[in-house]
Amino acid sequence: MADDTALRERTATLCRMLGRQGLIGMFGHVSLRVPGTSHVLLSPGAGSEKCEVRAKDIFVLDLDGTVLEHPAGRKVPAEWKIHTQIHRDRPDALSVVHLHAPYATLLGISGRELVPVFSHGAFLRTGVPVYDNPRLITTDAQAATLSRSLGQGIAVQMRGHGVCVAGVSAEAAFFACTFLEENARKQFEAASLGGARPLSPAEAADCAAANFSQYSFDLLWQYYEHKDEMADQLGCLAAPRGLS
Amino acid sequence: MADDTALRERTATLCRMLGRQGLIGMFGHVSLRVPGTSHVLLSPGAGSEKCEVRAKDIFVLDLDGTVLEHPAGRKVPAEWKIHTQIHRDRPDALSVVHLHAPYATLLGISGRELVPVFSHGAFLRTGVPVYDNPRLITTDAQAATLSRSLGQGIAVQMRGHGVCVAGVSAEAAFFACTFLEENARKQFEAASLGGARPLSPAEAADCAAANFSQYSFDLLWQYYEHKDEMADQLGCLAAPRGLS
Amino acid sequence: MADDTALRERTATLCRMLGRQGLIGMFGHVSLRVPGTSHVLLSPGAGSEKCEVRAKDIFVLDLDGTVLEHPAGRKVPAEWKIHTQIHRDRPDALSVVHLHAPYATLLGISGRELVPVFSHGAFLRTGVPVYDNPRLITTDAQAATLSRSLGQGIAVQMRGHGVCVAGVSAEAAFFACTFLEENARKQFEAASLGGARPLSPAEAADCAAANFSQYSFDLLWQYYEHKDEMADQLGCLAAPRGLS
Amino acid sequence: MADDTALRERTATLCRMLGRQGLIGMFGHVSLRVPGTSHVLLSPGAGSEKCEVRAKDIFVLDLDGTVLEHPAGRKVPAEWKIHTQIHRDRPDALSVVHLHAPYATLLGISGRELVPVFSHGAFLRTGVPVYDNPRLITTDAQAATLSRSLGQGIAVQMRGHGVCVAGVSAEAAFFACTFLEENARKQFEAASLGGARPLSPAEAADCAAANFSQYSFDLLWQYYEHKDEMADQLGCLAAPRGLS
Repeated sequence: MADDTALRERTATLCRMLGRQGLIGMFGHVSLRVPGTSHVLLSPGAGSEKCEVRAKDIFVLDLDGTVLEHPAGRKVPAEWKIHTQIHRDRPDALSVVHLHAPYATLLGISGRELVPVFSHGAFLRTGVPVYDNPRLITTDAQAATLSRSLGQGIAVQMRGHGVCVAGVSAEAAFFACTFLEENARKQFEAASLGGARPLSPAEAADCAAANFSQYSFDLLWQYYEHKDEMADQLGCLAAPRGLS
Repeated sequence: MADDTALRERTATLCRMLGRQGLIGMFGHVSLRVPGTSHVLLSPGAGSEKCEVRAKDIFVLDLDGTVLEHPAGRKVPAEWKIHTQIHRDRPDALSVVHLHAPYATLLGISGRELVPVFSHGAFLRTGVPVYDNPRLITTDAQAATLSRSLGQGIAVQMRGHGVCVAGVSAEAAFFACTFLEENARKQFEAASLGGARPLSPAEAADCAAANFSQYSFDLLWQYYEHKDEMADQLGCLAAPRGLS
Repeated sequence: MADDTALRERTATLCRMLGRQGLIGMFGHVSLRVPGTSHVLLSPGAGSEKCEVRAKDIFVLDLDGTVLEHPAGRKVPAEWKIHTQIHRDRPDALSVVHLHAPYATLLGISGRELVPVFSHGAFLRTGVPVYDNPRLITTDAQAATLSRSLGQGIAVQMRGHGVCVAGVSAEAAFFACTFLEENARKQFEAASLGGARPLSPAEAADCAAANFSQYSFDLLWQYYEHKDEMADQLGCLAAPRGLS
Repeated sequence: MADDTALRERTATLCRMLGRQGLIGMFGHVSLRVPGTSHVLLSPGAGSEKCEVRAKDIFVLDLDGTVLEHPAGRKVPAEWKIHTQIHRDRPDALSVVHLHAPYATLLGISGRELVPVFSHGAFLRTGVPVYDNPRLITTDAQAATLSRSLGQGIAVQMRGHGVCVAGVSAEAAFFACTFLEENARKQFEAASLGGARPLSPAEAADCAAANFSQYSFDLLWQYYEHKDEMADQLGCLAAPRGLS
């Protein structure tokens, strides 16, 4: 087996950072594909505190669903097929995340489309399709339908349930999760003020060209990695405040 | 008297966990019936910090209202008849909880019905009746009317006051409290967006079948038990963030 | 001079508890009249951290405005005439509080009347008049007009500014501040849901009879006194969460 | 070079205090001009935790954009031209701040004008123009247009992006940032209640005369400087709660 130590660390860090943001909660999970292999590194399922997940807690699954490594005392996520299915269908997406992010979920519940309303949400301009089914994803058929809804996109709404995000890297997925949720929150809040004025197609294209890049992904990741270290030192679960 | 040590611990833990979630506040209380007996274990009343309640602080009442054990320095809840009445009327409900949960109370104030809008709120499909009286429950007649409003249900709104929840176990009641409040919050927030699209009857039935089970109740309980331990270590009252 | 040590402690505690609730902020202040005297004990003005105020930081003013004791390094509140005026006009009101409570202030900004919408807000049934002037209270004329607006009431809105509360005791004032703000928050939130259904006059009278009493005032005070002690131990300013 | 040690400290403190308020986030920055020189002291760019910025982390730029000092391991803000441009155009504005303040940004997204609705927002009576472009400010032309939008004002909205504030001192800028955001939040919240009633021109003029002064700026600065010191002692990033 390839030396995937660094990738296991990154899977755990992604899980903790989303946990500290309050986006993943009890029921979310994240995965990274080991490049050039059929191995998927997957964070543990419900019952594990997401802000404490470490490399030793990471599952290794084969793309066919075989559990290659099962950390002691951890449960495989009930919805693990989300990950194997999307990794099979989207070899470009090295990272797949399933969140119960409050505001993104809220827009789904309310039947509202996610559209970019501020500069860091510009990447949403390619659209966020909706998987219109609140049930858990536990069958091959459900996973396949969800993956088809996602298509070649960055994110898919799961009505009455949550959201899935696909990224070319852990850092890309983290960026998309962070700003999808912030954009959703701004859309929610703007509704009380008569609604948001979305970015125009030209504005969104220019903003995304400027900020949806590996350079920005790395900056954001490092920024939150430091917050993660500080929260660890304080012994607390919640992420220190201050988003963008 | 049967050895109810573990049940007293569980009563106290239930009280602390709801306290750390901000759902029980100064005026709520929780009870467990000791199976096969007429004994009710009841958390202390107003004045006690709910996040610090321990097994030694638990009252023991008989179903007829006699106080069998009165922890030193604690007050019996003014509304203790809520518990004895519902335990008499609902032998299946081993746990009864009275909350001042902010969003559930808000829906009552606004005359809005609780309906399931996301997967973990699916259990609300059986309906949440309303007890239309904001007064404290201190008389037998009030307790009887409240209990009749609850009927065989899982929860009952108390307009301008709070909510009561009945569960087949402490874990079931905790699950119902947690997701009743989260569902209420999502309904509240969705209102700004034009309202929520509720789960269909078929969706709600399928989701409840999948997640309203002792397996899920235990998972959620363990998840929050760990948060409770961490908050204790930090010496803080508030629950670390991150719900579902 | 009478031994007012305990009253100075109580003035400081009232200030800290409101500070930890986030209701008094930088610009609020609280006072207690020493019964049977013309002395007013007053918390320090802007610049002092309200969550750290101690008995040694309390000003003593005469009802005529003379500063009898001026703690070193503290500033007398710019709006001290609020206190001397209302204490002169309302000998029954041993405690006067000026808050910048977010939701109460918000209702004033929006031209909305405070009406009781839940059991602990029942005391608002006697009405909360509005002082329709956002300017600082620095002149005798302004203070007199404000006091006339308050009249024999428990609270007065100050549009675009804040609120004043008068209580028969520190505990009464603290109760009124706490639940005036919670009622205001519930009114604000209910607006998104189509508005609150207020308590009926009979409901409000019954609820206020049951909970607007020295017994309840003392319970709430003790409940928050303990939170204050715990926040002190943790060295933090914010109040631990969980209101009612 | 003049001894600007105290100014570097002040730049760092301004950055930290806005960071702890949650207004500056990952992407904001602040600058002070060294009086009588062409030097601009500038906080570091994205990637640096704003709540930890110290004097040693401050960049020195010349008004022509030359980087005179580049702290090791820090990145110059991508939008540094905001600062050099406005400092050139506004020699009276010794402090320039770029924020991603949530509520001010929200009003921009919603196309809502900032108008004073409470006493400490009275300074907004001179108007907050809108720069209607969500793109990063990286070119001379963009910076010049932004500066022209600001004109001789105190603040300018940047739609879908954030806000810029200009102050005659660090303290003035901090006051304007703090209460611009609080006013924006009040406007946002009032919208659910049917909208805010703005201060009349006479009210706003009187309130601004009373509270928009160096005396008030210093008070607010000292108040938050103390909160900053306490947060440091606790080792936490978030500002202790309690605003005005």
